[in-house]
Amino acid sequence: MKRTEKTITRLGEFGLIDRLKTILAAPRKSDLIIGIGDDAAAIKIGDNRLLLVTCDIQVEDVHFRSKFLAPYQLGKRAIAVNQSDIAAMGGIPTYALVSASLPENLALNDFNSMFQGMTDQMAEYKGHIIGGNLARCDKKLFIDIFMLGKTNSKNLITRSKARPGNLIFVTGKVGSSSAGFAVLEKYHGSCPKKFSELVLAHQKPQPRVKMGVELAKSGAVTAMIDISDGLAIDLDHICGMSNVGAEIFQNEIPVSDMIEEVAKFRRKDKWDYPLYGGEDYELLFTAKPGREKTIARIAARCKVPVAAIGSILHSGAGLWLVQSDGSRIHLEPRGWNHFSFNKNSR
Amino acid sequence: MKRTEKTITRLGEFGLIDRLKTILAAPRKSDLIIGIGDDAAAIKIGDNRLLLVTCDIQVEDVHFRSKFLAPYQLGKRAIAVNQSDIAAMGGIPTYALVSASLPENLALNDFNSMFQGMTDQMAEYKGHIIGGNLARCDKKLFIDIFMLGKTNSKNLITRSKARPGNLIFVTGKVGSSSAGFAVLEKYHGSCPKKFSELVLAHQKPQPRVKMGVELAKSGAVTAMIDISDGLAIDLDHICGMSNVGAEIFQNEIPVSDMIEEVAKFRRKDKWDYPLYGGEDYELLFTAKPGREKTIARIAARCKVPVAAIGSILHSGAGLWLVQSDGSRIHLEPRGWNHFSFNKNSR
Repeated sequence: MKRTEKTITRLGEFGLIDRLKTILAAPRKSDLIIGIGDDAAAIKIGDNRLLLVTCDIQVEDVHFRSKFLAPYQLGKRAIAVNQSDIAAMGGIPTYALVSASLPENLALNDFNSMFQGMTDQMAEYKGHIIGGNLARCDKKLFIDIFMLGKTNSKNLITRSKARPGNLIFVTGKVGSSSAGFAVLEKYHGSCPKKFSELVLAHQKPQPRVKMGVELAKSGAVTAMIDISDGLAIDLDHICGMSNVGAEIFQNEIPVSDMIEEVAKFRRKDKWDYPLYGGEDYELLFTAKPGREKTIARIAARCKVPVAAIGSILHSGAGLWLVQSDGSRIHLEPRGWNHFSFNKNSR
Repeated sequence: MKRTEKTITRLGEFGLIDRLKTILAAPRKSDLIIGIGDDAAAIKIGDNRLLLVTCDIQVEDVHFRSKFLAPYQLGKRAIAVNQSDIAAMGGIPTYALVSASLPENLALNDFNSMFQGMTDQMAEYKGHIIGGNLARCDKKLFIDIFMLGKTNSKNLITRSKARPGNLIFVTGKVGSSSAGFAVLEKYHGSCPKKFSELVLAHQKPQPRVKMGVELAKSGAVTAMIDISDGLAIDLDHICGMSNVGAEIFQNEIPVSDMIEEVAKFRRKDKWDYPLYGGEDYELLFTAKPGREKTIARIAARCKVPVAAIGSILHSGAGLWLVQSDGSRIHLEPRGWNHFSFNKNSR
């Protein structure tokens, strides 16, 4: 293939995705409920039963560094990020296929640990790995996971039904994973204990499956996404698909106390991590006004913290951030990692 | 990860697969009909409806050379090899997810062509690409395809029900793809016209979907696999899963007339290509004796040549090749490409 003329990089990530939408014209099939453009595709397989399918990849030195992630953690993480996509649709992950490309000098013990991590993470939701393929590669390890999940027509939550006046919620704390990565980079693995919360957020992301299912069942939630690219850009994905604007309040965004210290030694703005950091795998969702108590009850039952951080505005209003000092600025829909883009991320 | 101690290479491919079978213990789930160990996994989704799932990857310089395969062909091929796995179960491919890792200097036109190839190949069986993800990588392009398919409980064909006395059949000609690759390597793309059949077999494999479906419906076929690793090793996969032996006749194996010439300039044995070449994506299947006419009728209807090449022996009989001179030798269950192994290939 020619690698000189106009390249994919020059077109830009979203130009590329638009191009794909044209090439992969949406099929007119009655059983395809959700195609390209959400956390997972949804296919009708019974009266009201839906099959969810998604895939996500972990490439060494692109999505992870092997020195910061033990093989067992890598295995768990590769599965967890896919379970998170299923959770964002309100579904339960069921089966996975694993496509792994492995360097020949990979230690056998590491191979075992990695697959044990995958198996254990699947088991957390009574799921199983049922196939896949192995290939050898020159250097960089990668694990590509194809995840199946299930839900029903009534409980399916997409990115596209946020409405003006809806409240915006987020689970857990955001920015911890990217800040944890910064800690690992600075301390090369032997990190001070005070940063454990951040480091663990990077190494052991917890998909919010139970919470996603309960939220979907509640009838209160209108749109949902998992935060993989970053709060700002993932909120923009909901707004784009729902054709609405949004306003969030910096003071309401749940962040770890330790992020400020990380921001200092990295000479970054503290808010870069929660707004643009990505890889949090928390749920970002919108809900009808007046349903705050329902959501609080679900959060308590699932033992997952949840915070209301803003509200949905009318179409064309854009994306806004009300800063701690009360000033209102345009929120840039950018993610931390400019080298990662997802066909489903619109 | 440590890359010094006992490595995956040292354990060997099949040792690795056995290890995986232990780690990924087969689930006791009533809806999982076929798990690891076949061309695709099968999940019950309705009264007798089955969902088939499989994945297969194309890695640059491992599975293909970009100088021998135009981007459009690469796209088609990546889809076709997965459709072939669905065909080997007697199923129809329906939807696919595409996970692609692309070098940043990939030409935009090549990107477009590649995805157009995928879309067109899906369309051959009225299928669609419904999601996936894109990531950037340093150098080597790869395309990992996750394919869904459908069949029903009655028509599902696996690798595990070949019985002694069954006849062994193969579609098309075998060895053409690997011989075609040898031609491309020698002539660097500007190949003499006489080798076109071989070169096309490598560049444009044709999954035998219609044939697979008809064979499955016929009730005559007992076991089936697609030839991805090579006739000898794929026959061994059927024998291993069915716990039987087999004997095939060299004179009956359908090969292209041009293979002899390729073997000559490559200083190889002519039979290396059909027996160990792989990537033919033809169907290898076993059928009850006395059903030869049924199979011939299906072949005629599908316009796909089919040949009876041997028969299934009792358990423990081993794998045998009756050579052109009448001598009977043990057939080694090896494939052409020792660097490729498949978790499903047992």
